[in-house]
Amino acid sequence: MKFSPKVQGLIEAFKCLPGVGAKSAQRMAFHLLERNRAGADALSEALSVAMRDVGHCRQCRNFTEADVCDICLSEKRKQSGLICVVESPADVIAIEQTGEFQGRYFVLMGHLSPIDGIGPGDLGLDVLETTLQQDNVSELILATNPTVEGEATAHYIASLAKDFNVSVSRIAHGVPVGGELEYVDGNTLSHALSGRKNY
Amino acid sequence: MKFSPKVQGLIEAFKCLPGVGAKSAQRMAFHLLERNRAGADALSEALSVAMRDVGHCRQCRNFTEADVCDICLSEKRKQSGLICVVESPADVIAIEQTGEFQGRYFVLMGHLSPIDGIGPGDLGLDVLETTLQQDNVSELILATNPTVEGEATAHYIASLAKDFNVSVSRIAHGVPVGGELEYVDGNTLSHALSGRKNY
Ligand SMILES: [Zn+2]
Ligand SMILES: [Zn+2]
Repeated sequence: MKFSPKVQGLIEAFKCLPGVGAKSAQRMAFHLLERNRAGADALSEALSVAMRDVGHCRQCRNFTEADVCDICLSEKRKQSGLICVVESPADVIAIEQTGEFQGRYFVLMGHLSPIDGIGPGDLGLDVLETTLQQDNVSELILATNPTVEGEATAHYIASLAKDFNVSVSRIAHGVPVGGELEYVDGNTLSHALSGRKNY
Repeated sequence: MKFSPKVQGLIEAFKCLPGVGAKSAQRMAFHLLERNRAGADALSEALSVAMRDVGHCRQCRNFTEADVCDICLSEKRKQSGLICVVESPADVIAIEQTGEFQGRYFVLMGHLSPIDGIGPGDLGLDVLETTLQQDNVSELILATNPTVEGEATAHYIASLAKDFNVSVSRIAHGVPVGGELEYVDGNTLSHALSGRKNY
């Protein structure tokens, strides 16, 4: 015996969400049916609208419902000559929130992962090459994650950028500000040591 | 700076789900936009269909898109004279899966909780009273959860049932079958001791 077909259908549909198994899917379905039907209708509508209208910015690949996103449209940002390469749209938000960066972005939407069949084409690196070729880019800042895949991706893009007249940098890795040495993992600590600067 | 309006709208909409905060909502939105648009469309449709069509069974209050659910429609189950009172639709599934129970259910859709303003009316106990009055019910099995609220709810329903010619029982609590004493919490263990039976 199962739930009635439309309840069961809703539970099944929730399993498309990352990290949502049978139990969570059931909890979500019951919660909405019992306590928040308005929220459920809003979610249904937001999903349908986003899937229909949201695509990738033609220049930076970030999610946007426009052809070119607001950041790429900014003449001031373009004139900075800076492009920061990140793995995900969330990284763009994180960097924007520092208020320190006034350039443009290039969002890979992932990282190189041969085991998952994700190659340079899947990360839109041809688009990045075109930008390096056509625009007056002075510096490419590689801000991929400090993971094995992120480092490999940074390395690949750095070698790709050699063909263009652009300086390439990598964001600094080390002990987080406010962090205590004692609680920092060994890998980060060795990065912090080898990357030391004169005081 | 935020994401584009329709991406931001999707992230906000996901926060209506239980246990989903800003970070998870973002992860869900990105996952669907990037990797599973078909799943997102299916979820949108399932939500809309379920919210439109799924209501409560007029007799047992379980979720169903029919007026009266399949279990309540069964003449054989009605003739058993048994009604098992549970807190949630998931409890019905759990009991059905044992294959041991051939009666009907009454689903409270919660438990008495004065602090949350949930009283007897919110649990549909007037509907249960009508059933006890009209149908030939021989035994009411209280299978609410062994929590403070579940026990209070069971107690309330037991006293309410006194007005009708029906015997009332409570499911047994104790050490789970296959469980090891060592790992059973003290409260369960004292239940198991006080509820001991002759061997
Ligand atoms: Zn853009
Ligand atoms: Zn029913």
